[in-house]
Amino acid sequence: MQDFYPSRVSDKPQITKRKDPVIHTDRRLDHEAPLSKEQLDFYEKNGFLQIENLFSEKEVAAMQKAIFELQDSNKHTQSDKIIREPDSDEIRSIFSVDQDDEYFKNIAGDERLLKIVNHLLGSDVYVHQSRINYKPGFSGKEFNWHSDFETWHTEDGMPRMRALSMSIALSDNYIHNGPLMLVPGSHNYYVSCVGETPENNYKQSLQTQKVGVPDNDSLKWLVEKGGGLSVATGKAGTITIFESNTMHASTSNMTPYPRNNLFMVYNSVENKLLEPFSGAGKRPEYIAVRKTTEPLGKETVLK
Amino acid sequence: MQDFYPSRVSDKPQITKRKDPVIHTDRRLDHEAPLSKEQLDFYEKNGFLQIENLFSEKEVAAMQKAIFELQDSNKHTQSDKIIREPDSDEIRSIFSVDQDDEYFKNIAGDERLLKIVNHLLGSDVYVHQSRINYKPGFSGKEFNWHSDFETWHTEDGMPRMRALSMSIALSDNYIHNGPLMLVPGSHNYYVSCVGETPENNYKQSLQTQKVGVPDNDSLKWLVEKGGGLSVATGKAGTITIFESNTMHASTSNMTPYPRNNLFMVYNSVENKLLEPFSGAGKRPEYIAVRKTTEPLGKETVLK
Repeated sequence: MQDFYPSRVSDKPQITKRKDPVIHTDRRLDHEAPLSKEQLDFYEKNGFLQIENLFSEKEVAAMQKAIFELQDSNKHTQSDKIIREPDSDEIRSIFSVDQDDEYFKNIAGDERLLKIVNHLLGSDVYVHQSRINYKPGFSGKEFNWHSDFETWHTEDGMPRMRALSMSIALSDNYIHNGPLMLVPGSHNYYVSCVGETPENNYKQSLQTQKVGVPDNDSLKWLVEKGGGLSVATGKAGTITIFESNTMHASTSNMTPYPRNNLFMVYNSVENKLLEPFSGAGKRPEYIAVRKTTEPLGKETVLK
Repeated sequence: MQDFYPSRVSDKPQITKRKDPVIHTDRRLDHEAPLSKEQLDFYEKNGFLQIENLFSEKEVAAMQKAIFELQDSNKHTQSDKIIREPDSDEIRSIFSVDQDDEYFKNIAGDERLLKIVNHLLGSDVYVHQSRINYKPGFSGKEFNWHSDFETWHTEDGMPRMRALSMSIALSDNYIHNGPLMLVPGSHNYYVSCVGETPENNYKQSLQTQKVGVPDNDSLKWLVEKGGGLSVATGKAGTITIFESNTMHASTSNMTPYPRNNLFMVYNSVENKLLEPFSGAGKRPEYIAVRKTTEPLGKETVLK
């Protein structure tokens, strides 16, 4: 299989153009989309889109309650699916919540979300990864700049750019509590990163990503090309959709305000995983490589 | 001498009320001030104030040039006045620029600045500390929450709250490149911090402050009391004045955009330093304890 997006194979970084559509449904079918033309244009151009009020206040409140119940019930759980802060025992992420929990399974399959995702990816989809991120006040650490696709491609064997992330804010995201920063337009370029992938790299990279991080010059180039940086603020319930290859990061949270979200990655059923392109071993199923790639939305889901 | 603001003496944090005015000139003399009533009200209530366009574009451009000339000429200088990043050789701060450099001395004594400072502090003033902060793109580290007064009081022997900081932005401060975060109204409360002051603490604290940092509960209380956090963004040339006891911090700068500023602390000549209240040794003159406390503005300064 040809590697359309090589990375971690050279000691020099390289920027190449994206080889896949951003919106995989023909734009002549915009009128069938659950998004407006303006929203589709924005997503295609910038590589991300924010949507407010898709969920009701009641639904958002229920999700907020549910993530803390899950955190509480896992306080003392020893599991690879539970990631803790580098310098404390606080839970930073819980993975695979759409598989292990009926409530979050239903959210992942919510038809309002699915209609959007199906349109953008132009096919049926399945959940490639899901997690809850807890960024408690005072102690949430920063995430380095990265393209998710770079990791999914090299470490998980995702062949093409036909996936997206959906983040549902479950606390208010201010400009000061470590919100998501995105480089507009960066999804149109692929930065081949420097460095080889260590065996079991995911264990390290979930705490502090060091491999698959773009070099400063490439990032600077992308930011200049995109005309700046965008910061995804918004009240709890706001949905941020970003394309698999959009460069993003977040600073630490030094404020008393927590920053929590529910995070789901959808992949097209036409884009199923192959062998990892990095030559490193596969990451475990709970992070990425699902046995089940049955398309979502074919059964009735609860509301 | 009575210690009105004890800190670092108990193993429990404590919040007490401010015992000094915020604006030291009688408010009945507002009409004599170089600031509007709205500006004075804002400063008194929040503990900080931003002013745009006080300097001309030409003046700002000259300052921007001057700070890099100084950085370049000190590239290989070994001096206590030059602080470098914890994990690289890049210059993070140069201290005492108003004493060592004629150009920056003139800025510190600029009569537009002095008129404001004299009014707010209600007396003649001298420079307690000056420095240039360089926060280069990608590598500027975070500054923990702190009240400057807490340090100046315990480590330098500043008796009362009758000083202020003036930061002149010399690059555009965006919401995303590690701008100053301030807790509105926090200047009205004094947080007695926990922990003793190690000998030569300043050497550590200029890189990463660990002593004199408020506990999380006190900070949370202040933020709730103040109704949130403020972020001091603004284009190059914007001046941010903040009261000596205003709680502030900044996150790391992960963006390609630098964040540089010229920073001067003015103290009232009625508030000259005594022995440090912490019992620790005095910090060196270049950081704080000036031999010269002659009031500024008595000689003609260049423009």
